[in-house]
Amino acid sequence: MSKKTTIYDIAKKLDITAATVSRALNNNPKISEATRELVLKTAAKMNYKQNRLALALQSGKSNNVGVIVPRVDSNFFGAIIRGVEEELNPHGYHVIICQTHEDENRENENIDTLLNAQVDGILISTTSNKITEPFNRVLKKNTPLVFFDRRKTMNGVSSVTINDFEGGYKATKHLIEQGCTRIAHFSGNRSIEIFQERYLGYKQALIDSGIEFNEDYVIETKSNREAGSNAVKLLLELNPPPEAIFSSGDFAALGAIEELRLRNINIPEEFAVVGFSNEPFTKFMELSISSIDQSPLEMGKMAAKVFLEQVTNTDNIKMEKKVILEPELIIRKSSLKTSLIKPNLKKVT
Amino acid sequence: MSKKTTIYDIAKKLDITAATVSRALNNNPKISEATRELVLKTAAKMNYKQNRLALALQSGKSNNVGVIVPRVDSNFFGAIIRGVEEELNPHGYHVIICQTHEDENRENENIDTLLNAQVDGILISTTSNKITEPFNRVLKKNTPLVFFDRRKTMNGVSSVTINDFEGGYKATKHLIEQGCTRIAHFSGNRSIEIFQERYLGYKQALIDSGIEFNEDYVIETKSNREAGSNAVKLLLELNPPPEAIFSSGDFAALGAIEELRLRNINIPEEFAVVGFSNEPFTKFMELSISSIDQSPLEMGKMAAKVFLEQVTNTDNIKMEKKVILEPELIIRKSSLKTSLIKPNLKKVT
Repeated sequence: MSKKTTIYDIAKKLDITAATVSRALNNNPKISEATRELVLKTAAKMNYKQNRLALALQSGKSNNVGVIVPRVDSNFFGAIIRGVEEELNPHGYHVIICQTHEDENRENENIDTLLNAQVDGILISTTSNKITEPFNRVLKKNTPLVFFDRRKTMNGVSSVTINDFEGGYKATKHLIEQGCTRIAHFSGNRSIEIFQERYLGYKQALIDSGIEFNEDYVIETKSNREAGSNAVKLLLELNPPPEAIFSSGDFAALGAIEELRLRNINIPEEFAVVGFSNEPFTKFMELSISSIDQSPLEMGKMAAKVFLEQVTNTDNIKMEKKVILEPELIIRKSSLKTSLIKPNLKKVT
Repeated sequence: MSKKTTIYDIAKKLDITAATVSRALNNNPKISEATRELVLKTAAKMNYKQNRLALALQSGKSNNVGVIVPRVDSNFFGAIIRGVEEELNPHGYHVIICQTHEDENRENENIDTLLNAQVDGILISTTSNKITEPFNRVLKKNTPLVFFDRRKTMNGVSSVTINDFEGGYKATKHLIEQGCTRIAHFSGNRSIEIFQERYLGYKQALIDSGIEFNEDYVIETKSNREAGSNAVKLLLELNPPPEAIFSSGDFAALGAIEELRLRNINIPEEFAVVGFSNEPFTKFMELSISSIDQSPLEMGKMAAKVFLEQVTNTDNIKMEKKVILEPELIIRKSSLKTSLIKPNLKKVT
């Protein structure tokens, strides 16, 4: 391994001072164009590499972009990050990732961590609606900020989301079309916009079909199997119990299905289930789970594109862009009853 | 929102120069102890926060730790990262994550990205055995480096791994105990140590049981469902075909199972399957998949502990620590035939 070239080596070679070399490399106007060119050429020949952090401090550009997500180990956020990387890497950007675990303080710390790591931009799926001090710092530093999936309402900040209302509406409408009328809803924390929107979509679909909304059928659940299993236990104690669930998350839907099967309740004949996010396991379960696809790869790419537009936007005009993607309903075994409701069978029961 | 306190505010308050305030805050020996204490007290009262990057440049400490993994969206690496965070956060460290997608160049870039972000340490599951320039840079900068799961052989660098040989051995031994003799192996890229070790464990278990090793039964597969499905197709064309697979990864095991079921081959009666990693889906499939658990949470915590020991190691002695965790075989439906091999049934067939 050869010794790393320093500005002192270049200075010695050209018989000038290290300070002159440094100024030349950093485009200081005190240095003549001829000297600057000579220094750059010699530096290139000697395979000199400037310290990237020093460069970042001078140019204000690190070529690092920070991505903050609630957690990295879900397919949904994993695919978003992949989309961001696929879009940004060809432009010479590197992606560094932080996770919040849905903790607002952690999120604030992540912002500071990334600012201190001198990132050129922050792409974030946020955990609360509150606009905290670190977010203001991002704006004050003029660091491009883009929300994806979960956003805060901030002036001049762009976002890429999906139409969650539409997702909730489509899922619920599908269950109604399958003949269900007593449809429950697992909602996430509705102080987060996406969960509120899915809930509103669910409610609207009921109203539009003339089905009475029953508050007892709405249960706030976390996005894990235990929560889904516990929530369905509560629902089954109601009189009458529901005959279908639209869950705001796939993991809670899975928990519900496991609990229903333990009780020998037939799915979808006696109880239909639709999840949200289209996590891979929903597809490869033997009893595959209907879900709402949110095209996370595309969402990541779009968020990256919005960031790129922002950094290349040399006008000093604030750009606020709202991209809203359309969700897609994927119908699978857990909710597809239609083939069973044949006219002749209907008469028998 | 109150205006941020600057060193100028402190200087004004104390009627001294900003330079003196700066020197006091940065423990410059030219400043008297009395002045230093006054400045620190006033700074605390005025809720002054030093720029963390500036601090990092002065103290050489950013309180950020970088974690590099092949990919973030697997439960295995997700759980490792969680373990690292659980251990490091209480010590005031923040974790930033990069993924390599098994690409060596990307890995090198990630190292540079983290060094430039001034991390205090790098924890990495590496993608190749080669010791490249960026890794030498890490050592030269005296930045603590810890390998987990997948390591390079580097002098003075610690690692936390599991006993992959043992994992391969246990899985294969279990299949033999279930009455299988024609046991195939899906191996990963064996230039990576963990996959080579799993393969050697598989081979040794066969040898120890007096079963002849058949090279045709070993197929190098990527860790995804398509690869597993394709590999099992090749195996089924052999004469005789195998009757069991030990797969180095759960996703390839799942692909194999899906293909076997398409062909109406009964699992585990006609064909037994064991995976590796204990991804959650192996447990919650209706036909649950036997697998090797690698205690990733513990692995992450252990890697973080090794890092903490290293940063607090004030002696200038190089510390090289090798922690090897024991893998655990989790037996599930995809390989458990024992209950079927009842003595009376055996006679009937």
